[in-house]
Amino acid sequence: MASPSLSPLQAEVNRLRLELETLQASNASELIEVGNYLLARLEQLKVTNMFGVPGDFNLGFLDLVEDHPSINWVGNCNELNAAYAADGYARVKEHSIGVVLTTFGVGELSAINGIAGAFSEMVPVLHIVGVPSTTQQKAKALLHHTLGDGRHVLFDAYVKAAEHFTISQRIITDKDTAAAQIDRVLTDCMTRARPVYLTLPTNLVFEKISSERLKIPLSHAQPPNDPDVEAFVLDEVVKLVKDAGDGVVVLVDACAVRHDAREEVNALIRKTGYPIYSAPMGKTAVPETYERYGGIYMGSISHPDVKEKVESAKLILSIGSLKSDFNTGNFTYSIPASRTVEFHSDHTKVQHGVFPAIGMKELLPRLTERLEPCSHKSPVPDFSAVVPQEDNEIITHAWLWPRMSKFFQPKDVIVAETGTSNFGLLEVPLPEQAVFLSQILWGSIGWTVGSTLGAAFAARESGLNRTILFIGDGSLQLTVQEMSTMLRHGLTPIIFVLNNAGYTIERCIHGRERKYNDIQNWNWTGLLGVLGDAALEKSRSYTVHTKRELSDLLETKEFAEAGKIQLVEVMMQMHDAPRALAVQVELGAKTNAYSAL
Amino acid sequence: MASPSLSPLQAEVNRLRLELETLQASNASELIEVGNYLLARLEQLKVTNMFGVPGDFNLGFLDLVEDHPSINWVGNCNELNAAYAADGYARVKEHSIGVVLTTFGVGELSAINGIAGAFSEMVPVLHIVGVPSTTQQKAKALLHHTLGDGRHVLFDAYVKAAEHFTISQRIITDKDTAAAQIDRVLTDCMTRARPVYLTLPTNLVFEKISSERLKIPLSHAQPPNDPDVEAFVLDEVVKLVKDAGDGVVVLVDACAVRHDAREEVNALIRKTGYPIYSAPMGKTAVPETYERYGGIYMGSISHPDVKEKVESAKLILSIGSLKSDFNTGNFTYSIPASRTVEFHSDHTKVQHGVFPAIGMKELLPRLTERLEPCSHKSPVPDFSAVVPQEDNEIITHAWLWPRMSKFFQPKDVIVAETGTSNFGLLEVPLPEQAVFLSQILWGSIGWTVGSTLGAAFAARESGLNRTILFIGDGSLQLTVQEMSTMLRHGLTPIIFVLNNAGYTIERCIHGRERKYNDIQNWNWTGLLGVLGDAALEKSRSYTVHTKRELSDLLETKEFAEAGKIQLVEVMMQMHDAPRALAVQVELGAKTNAYSAL
Repeated sequence: MASPSLSPLQAEVNRLRLELETLQASNASELIEVGNYLLARLEQLKVTNMFGVPGDFNLGFLDLVEDHPSINWVGNCNELNAAYAADGYARVKEHSIGVVLTTFGVGELSAINGIAGAFSEMVPVLHIVGVPSTTQQKAKALLHHTLGDGRHVLFDAYVKAAEHFTISQRIITDKDTAAAQIDRVLTDCMTRARPVYLTLPTNLVFEKISSERLKIPLSHAQPPNDPDVEAFVLDEVVKLVKDAGDGVVVLVDACAVRHDAREEVNALIRKTGYPIYSAPMGKTAVPETYERYGGIYMGSISHPDVKEKVESAKLILSIGSLKSDFNTGNFTYSIPASRTVEFHSDHTKVQHGVFPAIGMKELLPRLTERLEPCSHKSPVPDFSAVVPQEDNEIITHAWLWPRMSKFFQPKDVIVAETGTSNFGLLEVPLPEQAVFLSQILWGSIGWTVGSTLGAAFAARESGLNRTILFIGDGSLQLTVQEMSTMLRHGLTPIIFVLNNAGYTIERCIHGRERKYNDIQNWNWTGLLGVLGDAALEKSRSYTVHTKRELSDLLETKEFAEAGKIQLVEVMMQMHDAPRALAVQVELGAKTNAYSAL
Repeated sequence: MASPSLSPLQAEVNRLRLELETLQASNASELIEVGNYLLARLEQLKVTNMFGVPGDFNLGFLDLVEDHPSINWVGNCNELNAAYAADGYARVKEHSIGVVLTTFGVGELSAINGIAGAFSEMVPVLHIVGVPSTTQQKAKALLHHTLGDGRHVLFDAYVKAAEHFTISQRIITDKDTAAAQIDRVLTDCMTRARPVYLTLPTNLVFEKISSERLKIPLSHAQPPNDPDVEAFVLDEVVKLVKDAGDGVVVLVDACAVRHDAREEVNALIRKTGYPIYSAPMGKTAVPETYERYGGIYMGSISHPDVKEKVESAKLILSIGSLKSDFNTGNFTYSIPASRTVEFHSDHTKVQHGVFPAIGMKELLPRLTERLEPCSHKSPVPDFSAVVPQEDNEIITHAWLWPRMSKFFQPKDVIVAETGTSNFGLLEVPLPEQAVFLSQILWGSIGWTVGSTLGAAFAARESGLNRTILFIGDGSLQLTVQEMSTMLRHGLTPIIFVLNNAGYTIERCIHGRERKYNDIQNWNWTGLLGVLGDAALEKSRSYTVHTKRELSDLLETKEFAEAGKIQLVEVMMQMHDAPRALAVQVELGAKTNAYSAL
């Protein structure tokens, strides 16, 4: 996420300086190991935790990480969870990046789904891979962790695989270009908010190079907007806004968060008073307590009043949109381009016209300057959580999410697994400055255990409040071991495990009564004890069967304080699901076309 | 693994028939769903278990799997473990293949390290991926599990990634070519003994096609050797053998097992009486109890008498060699090409001359026919397990592996994790018809939990004995959840967990006292209870601290019978390691070149 203090021009100056630095003979005044150069850059980027798993090709670098005064090594249980953790960390830790370290072949490939998810959802993660020495590479040696057919030379296969899921790849081959490679890959990571890939050969980790470049900070900024084009675009947009009168609505989405435009969005809406709605992936981009905020727009799945208000708007300012299926009620957006202006990090779209290289970070403040507060503030639906009166003690989804909404506090970090959890949480407002994490586009179940770990670290460092995870029993089985790492580092999330005897989201989609949607029942409340808290001193676990039991627990001071890691097994019915999920899968089923059914 | 009953000529005839079948108009006599066509083929290949994880794009196909009368769906906890399980299954189940089913994007990428390991070690695994309908693909819809930038059309990114780690990829796009695609990919899998990739769109699973092709079995066989070239090669080899007199030695390796040449190898050595040694990856290719078997040859790491015998041989018949680092004592083989004939599945090398397309499956029996029993049987070192007398109760590696060797029984399936376990087991003989599983080339720690699951299924079906796993504490943390699946399916492996407080193999390589080589200590003996045996009726767990405790346990009838799944936590010293591992890492350290150290 970009540092707000560095203007685009200043950033350009720095970039040019760095280029010059590369070309000039290096000043030998102060030497630093290649590995420590990398760590110094990461420290500049405010990275405080590095995730990953040791492997023989990264152990030398790990010495430097372990010895580093401010960067903490988090040894994960496996590489996929480590990549998930780096992703979660990056989503919460503003103006920084997530970092995961793996080993050649076996480690990096284990992480690849985590990197792909970060790529898909635009999260800046650096994947460092410890690789064999340049000598071994040249000799085409048939090392362990290779494919047995010589194709690992220059790591062809692994690098090529990484190319699909990262925005930039740098292979360090000699010490003279190492610093420039490192700077380049980190800059790409930040400016494009997507994962990048860097290999570190064992024999170069400790090679000494000049530290001179470190004096010039890396730049996060996008290249500046062309002033003429930008002026043109501004005029066009302002005209549309004027024509729309009081019928302007703002829709905020994922990329407003990823590309660090939240302040600019918030400034715009507060000046103008326009109603604002959020796509699922933009939830908490603006505070959900804001009085002009009307809730989540998800196409046909939206609440009727939200749907009506958004789709009848004369003009929609769509900021950072990412129109994936789960993010748009299965593509049921009903907002014609003729009534839309789209703001993105690297282009703007005014009705049907696309303006490349006009980014929102600069454009939005200039637009805000030109806009007036709207004369009549059209009403927005009330987006609040009403706990329904149900005449039984069953913990239903209809009751659970509004009830949880009352439990949340400002600055809580709330993580929702793909499944009933994230669909359920979409329907309730979160408090002031809360942060919402969910993998709505990529949707890899189990992601949240690793991402909660990373998020909890970032929350602790960022002065945020509690970290709270909602995960289904089926999803937890994929990645459960990372709870051990939470214990090990003294993190204290609250983990709600929805025990509904299986993969409920899958049951909704297909195979409602099928055995393949069942899972083995675990002793959920025994997990923390087995994964590192044998004395049961560092954690607490509970099972709640009824509304009353859960409410009583939520109202318990010690529980709410979250001073220890806690797991709550919530007993729920197998076929119950939140409203939004039920509608979503109905829409999706038609397209999946399991034709014989 | 090839079916022995189908000769190459017959196989050729079948292949041609299938081609014709494809071109002729399909006979509509009996229709079958595409999904069931695939299952019918798998049934013909003796597949009885399919591994994987449900996901929305594979649920329709899962209906067919669940309903199939002979193929059993094994729902794994995650996709990486599922791929590991398919690998283990394929290694034990002769003349069959492993099958893993995942879902588009998130599932398939999670499995990729498991597929790559099977590719590297030449294990036939079919990776089926449930993908969106052809309609959705054409519309370039931004579905969940996609990369958010349109690049998923034709699954470019995922298919391209798969291409690096599979020998063949087939993307089913219409029902008319589906059967041919399925047949092609399965044939590739078997004949080349490597993983293959097949995508199944949701809308084609239930489409009806002709079942006519099913009458023609698929062929496992390699194309026949060219008779002229083969005759030439035979003459050359026989000449070399004659010149070598009684100085011929046989070295058997991985590919003899993978390419189903064990019978041929065994026939050759029993007729000739040549001494035979095994590379690590060839362990149990021939029975280690055979009197002419001299043990494991690992270059400089070998026991001195083995090293001497092999390296002084006048001629070495090297069958199925795969010269990776861990397989060759870090490339310290000292066997010049001038004294070697190499037999492979798809070529033969006589001294320096390579003869492509001359495969060992046909060549070896013809060679055996031409060879005579050797007149003087040169002595082979005694390869036996001597339990050392140590004057303490500490469970040392030097003691453990010979002691375990006494515990093993014929037809046991023994799985050894990368680390102290596999290096330790290399040094002791295994009984008659025992099967040894280890991932010596790919070396992905944690692999053995999944592969033990798969191996245990195959062992149960193949009339083998017990399945016994040795795994380090660090490795177990990566993939622990698959113990739940073992419990769920009533499998009863014995799992020895070596508790030496961390990643001992890494400690040996580098970072002996480093914190990054520590792990969180778990309550190992509480794991099975938490992962599905809350009543502690289906499993038993033990901790052993001393030689006596372990010996007593091994001698307990109920324990040895392995009627329930059992976990034994073996307390060992942090820095103790088997001899072979210590030497291996010393050799490797020089090449890793952590130069400042």
